[in-house]
Amino acid sequence: VGKTQEEITAALKARILFFNVESIPELKLINKLAGKLNLKAQVAIRINPNVDADTHDYITTAKKQNKFGIDLKTTRHIFLNLSKELKNLDICGVHFHIGSQIEQVRPFRQALGKALELIESLRQKGCAITHLNIGGGLGIIYKKEKPQTAADYARTVISFVRGKKLNLILEPGRFVVGNAGVLLAKVIYVKNTPVKRFLIVDAAMNDIIRPSFYGAYHEIIPLNVKRKAKLKKVDVVGPVCESGDFIAKNRALPDNLKEGDVLAVMSAGAYCFGMASNYNSRCRPAEVLVKGRKFTVINRRQNYRDLIRGEKISNR
Amino acid sequence: VGKTQEEITAALKARILFFNVESIPELKLINKLAGKLNLKAQVAIRINPNVDADTHDYITTAKKQNKFGIDLKTTRHIFLNLSKELKNLDICGVHFHIGSQIEQVRPFRQALGKALELIESLRQKGCAITHLNIGGGLGIIYKKEKPQTAADYARTVISFVRGKKLNLILEPGRFVVGNAGVLLAKVIYVKNTPVKRFLIVDAAMNDIIRPSFYGAYHEIIPLNVKRKAKLKKVDVVGPVCESGDFIAKNRALPDNLKEGDVLAVMSAGAYCFGMASNYNSRCRPAEVLVKGRKFTVINRRQNYRDLIRGEKISNR
Repeated sequence: VGKTQEEITAALKARILFFNVESIPELKLINKLAGKLNLKAQVAIRINPNVDADTHDYITTAKKQNKFGIDLKTTRHIFLNLSKELKNLDICGVHFHIGSQIEQVRPFRQALGKALELIESLRQKGCAITHLNIGGGLGIIYKKEKPQTAADYARTVISFVRGKKLNLILEPGRFVVGNAGVLLAKVIYVKNTPVKRFLIVDAAMNDIIRPSFYGAYHEIIPLNVKRKAKLKKVDVVGPVCESGDFIAKNRALPDNLKEGDVLAVMSAGAYCFGMASNYNSRCRPAEVLVKGRKFTVINRRQNYRDLIRGEKISNR
Repeated sequence: VGKTQEEITAALKARILFFNVESIPELKLINKLAGKLNLKAQVAIRINPNVDADTHDYITTAKKQNKFGIDLKTTRHIFLNLSKELKNLDICGVHFHIGSQIEQVRPFRQALGKALELIESLRQKGCAITHLNIGGGLGIIYKKEKPQTAADYARTVISFVRGKKLNLILEPGRFVVGNAGVLLAKVIYVKNTPVKRFLIVDAAMNDIIRPSFYGAYHEIIPLNVKRKAKLKKVDVVGPVCESGDFIAKNRALPDNLKEGDVLAVMSAGAYCFGMASNYNSRCRPAEVLVKGRKFTVINRRQNYRDLIRGEKISNR
């Protein structure tokens, strides 16, 4: 939604394919900086199609009150008028990204409809639009969601773009990696209180903030637990110093889980490590890539040295 | 709420003053590990006094449904019976921490009352209790709160502990550093949409998650802005890819703020940098210590190299 001058200059020098631009000031700044470098930058306008993606408020990104994108009227003004002044830009793309974890087809149909209508009408007035970036947002299964499949999605998209001579750009993120990641958490204490049982694990909100930040659900599967057991509702929590530090609340899990057992927190491939912090001076976990029976540590566990790297004691 | 075996062993070796213990399994583990090192560990029991700190749910930590502390009945059992078996522990302290950003005196009075009653009654039965740790939780002024002053707080505490022969331990955190920190954010774009104005700044939810995580308010003061202006309600947002990335919503700020102006986001000394992440591949900002007109960079700005330190490409 806002690239700094330094970021734009670096991207221009790296000859990136496209800038997805979200405001007129940003457009003017890129034009100016491209001019300085004597370059012509390819630009797509990120439109705000004003559709409700029907997902968590924080990840709905295409309603008119959101900070993202440019309304359709202003977009037309940019293509039809402003583009003539912006000599160092080739404004040849339309972009939208309506949100994240979208389960229904409807919001995509609405956005595609609006984008194609815009493109058709601009083309009729002489604009050469060559690229359509439809963003990401495909929902995945965390619990019992029944999101559209990739095939459903493809059919929807094709029904809009077939024959339109548009280069299509997609930005699937969570859909590709979300279900592929698992967070392993070891039970360090089973804590019974008069009103509740807590499984205190060695992972915490600093590793996986989605449950407390978005109220998100992650499936939890105990590993290597052969013992037969009834289910009991427990809170799975980390060692961080606040009540917001939980991975699951009132989750039915085998009632004989004990210290040392390992829980797999499923579907942790997106927005977990990526949003991880060092809150409570906790080191970030290692990342391990698994392929069949082979594995590689692709990111080592942080240590305390990492936490203070860059720090300096003032002698003032 | 849960220290791992490794953490306990390291703390024993470092001869820390006290373990604040929150469950019987934790007590037993520390006893076992202290035995292995042939040490006697000083322990305080963190009690759960079941008081409502009347603050954000995520930072209320002493209600009976919270994961923290040990109920009073179990605490009595620990002091009167279990302590005899735990030969490597000197259980001589009582600890509570009822929450964070507490503005009223009432929850502290309630917790102190319960703790002192417990201590008196245990002492009558022969327990040698030498330390009382009353935690932290003193609220600070973010907006127009009127929290108890440090003097009020001291008077309350003294009224309970005077003459009780207890070593008092306090854990003020936010109270000491909260108001001392300021986050500087530069306006990179002023974005007008048909329904709203956004100031897009170069700080984001990865730097300061409190507004979206807790619904927290931080005062925003434009720096070096001499121009006279009316006020206009704007959203102050960062460049991160979600609508949850905001520092302030509908905040009245001078309507002539422009690109390059710097905003001071006030009272950012606690739970801001400490909870910072690298979400959206954003490098953490520098930390600067200011004393009068002197300053020292005490933590350098992160760079992209920092973000991939420890990563390794798999050749599987």
